[in-house]
Amino acid sequence: MKIGILGGGQLARMIALAGYPLGLKFIVLDPDPNAGAGGLSEHLHGAYDDPQLLAELAEKADIVTYEFENVPADVAAFLSSHTTVYPPANALAVAQDRLLEKNFFRELGIGTAPYRAIDSLADLEQAMPEIGYPAILKSRRMGYDGKGQALLHSAQDLAAAWESVAGVPCIVEGFVGFSREVSIIAARSPSGHIVFYPLSENRHKGGILRIAECRNNDALQAQAENHVRLLLERLGYVGVVALELFDVDGELLANEFAPRVHNSGHWTIEGAETSQFENHLRAILDLPLGSTKPRGLAAMVNFIGGLAPDPAVLALADSHLHLYDKEPRKGRKVAHATVRSDDGIIYAETLEKLRLLAEAVDDS
Amino acid sequence: MKIGILGGGQLARMIALAGYPLGLKFIVLDPDPNAGAGGLSEHLHGAYDDPQLLAELAEKADIVTYEFENVPADVAAFLSSHTTVYPPANALAVAQDRLLEKNFFRELGIGTAPYRAIDSLADLEQAMPEIGYPAILKSRRMGYDGKGQALLHSAQDLAAAWESVAGVPCIVEGFVGFSREVSIIAARSPSGHIVFYPLSENRHKGGILRIAECRNNDALQAQAENHVRLLLERLGYVGVVALELFDVDGELLANEFAPRVHNSGHWTIEGAETSQFENHLRAILDLPLGSTKPRGLAAMVNFIGGLAPDPAVLALADSHLHLYDKEPRKGRKVAHATVRSDDGIIYAETLEKLRLLAEAVDDS
Repeated sequence: MKIGILGGGQLARMIALAGYPLGLKFIVLDPDPNAGAGGLSEHLHGAYDDPQLLAELAEKADIVTYEFENVPADVAAFLSSHTTVYPPANALAVAQDRLLEKNFFRELGIGTAPYRAIDSLADLEQAMPEIGYPAILKSRRMGYDGKGQALLHSAQDLAAAWESVAGVPCIVEGFVGFSREVSIIAARSPSGHIVFYPLSENRHKGGILRIAECRNNDALQAQAENHVRLLLERLGYVGVVALELFDVDGELLANEFAPRVHNSGHWTIEGAETSQFENHLRAILDLPLGSTKPRGLAAMVNFIGGLAPDPAVLALADSHLHLYDKEPRKGRKVAHATVRSDDGIIYAETLEKLRLLAEAVDDS
Repeated sequence: MKIGILGGGQLARMIALAGYPLGLKFIVLDPDPNAGAGGLSEHLHGAYDDPQLLAELAEKADIVTYEFENVPADVAAFLSSHTTVYPPANALAVAQDRLLEKNFFRELGIGTAPYRAIDSLADLEQAMPEIGYPAILKSRRMGYDGKGQALLHSAQDLAAAWESVAGVPCIVEGFVGFSREVSIIAARSPSGHIVFYPLSENRHKGGILRIAECRNNDALQAQAENHVRLLLERLGYVGVVALELFDVDGELLANEFAPRVHNSGHWTIEGAETSQFENHLRAILDLPLGSTKPRGLAAMVNFIGGLAPDPAVLALADSHLHLYDKEPRKGRKVAHATVRSDDGIIYAETLEKLRLLAEAVDDS
């Protein structure tokens, strides 16, 4: 059985590492000749919308999946008409457009921050009195790691902000006074079976995830599960999904969802009985889903920009290193490390040391 | 950093899977074009003693290691003169000759079953009154999974046994009344740092390992650690080693050792904080060794001859599947499954179900 993956970065790499023990083979399509999943898979080297390569991918792969949600609609349509593609195209269509995504949450009865569709500077000027400051202007499409976004502190920011996003269709979103950001990772099979991981509590800086901690027995676990279950069932979803949420006085508001394995779930490799990567594969292959039970305490720290000093990370108690085989570059995720421990003191000490090691090489 | 491996079977495959997160790349030399590690590494396809391929392996790899101990002495010597090879050649020389191995254990003060060197039928006839029946005649070299061995029940068996091993140099070994077979996996760095895994308790049938269970806090752990420490230090060993032992009324007698990662340590992938495969790589690269602490209860079941039915294995609570990408063939290890659980009842139930699934496809 061969799995095709659009994109050959670290997510494809970790999917492949989880898939070999299941007897799977992989083929990735990625324009980067040095894509990190390359050594682990057959590598089609070229543009994501190259019709010849897409035809080859569809021909060679039994099932196609992807490691990012910004797959052009016609690419998704082409692949879907030639082979099985999971998650389904409708999930992509919603996830890659912030307005459709927010509307979708509201339709499901899931709260969000206040937002408005913005197609002109006039729209923005009209919306702001109701949304209030501060707020954030975001392009509807292709937003990733804080790019294509502008902060609005007062009416004087509006024209410059509108210019900075190049006048593309946007939404403006009000701030909500959240106490923390969490995400829930879940997987759904074609037969409708769903499993949920314990909540991840996430720390961002500059719009980029820095630390994700497994929160076992969180008081809001059931609420998060209800939200993501609604989403999965409405979309007839298959595979792993990540739903990002704001905790506002115990109410979980939806921020966004990613129709794929997610950075906030990397701790599941060591910290859960079955990783998100393996469960994504089990789900799209309609195999029984694996247990999502946590294994003790676990957290993940991203290394961004600079490389982690391997021996320093490996010398820490209960620490695990994951290099992505990527050249260090400003703001680029090149590795992560996980602490997994049954001992609360070791856990806290190693997490803090990993945080400091990551901060020391962070250029973002 | 590129690691060369002599052999591209399941052990090389699992070493590679453990090495990608450490940022390593792999090149294997294996005569089988379908070797299981092939998709995960560059693959030199040819005989283990092909001088051109060995030169290419030594040239391309920063460090060479191996997945079996029966590496011809001149191959080991050639590689050692061109690159770094771990574990060291002297460990190979001892491990691949049962007589040297038994003598080595005795020199270290480690008990063994009674044995004698046998180079002729006359030797055998002379030795047996002292060794006693039943006993086993084993070729000194290339013994593996019970091949090249003959059982001796009485003096009438001697001539046929000697013929069955084709008159090669042998040892004869008396039986000892052991209550169980255990092994200890340990890793040693070039700097002399050693880590030990909890004992594995092993069940064999027909000379082939069937089940290995992690025995946390076993009463004989310290004794086993002492034995393997003596061995590692005397050999100036680097890498992972497995020492197989018989428990005879609380005294551990050495059976044999494998200078490599070992089937009885496969449970460490899920059942220990750091797997034997990762610690082998950490050791040969002189990186800090990872924690060997057990994670709950763990055991491994081999699938031999026939393939495991994937969904049945994956549907079991706390079960993990490892397929080797090998064609099923009589007596061939094609997969293993691990149960890892914090719950003793789930552990026992899943282990028994895995045992039955393995038995159902076993043709050996």
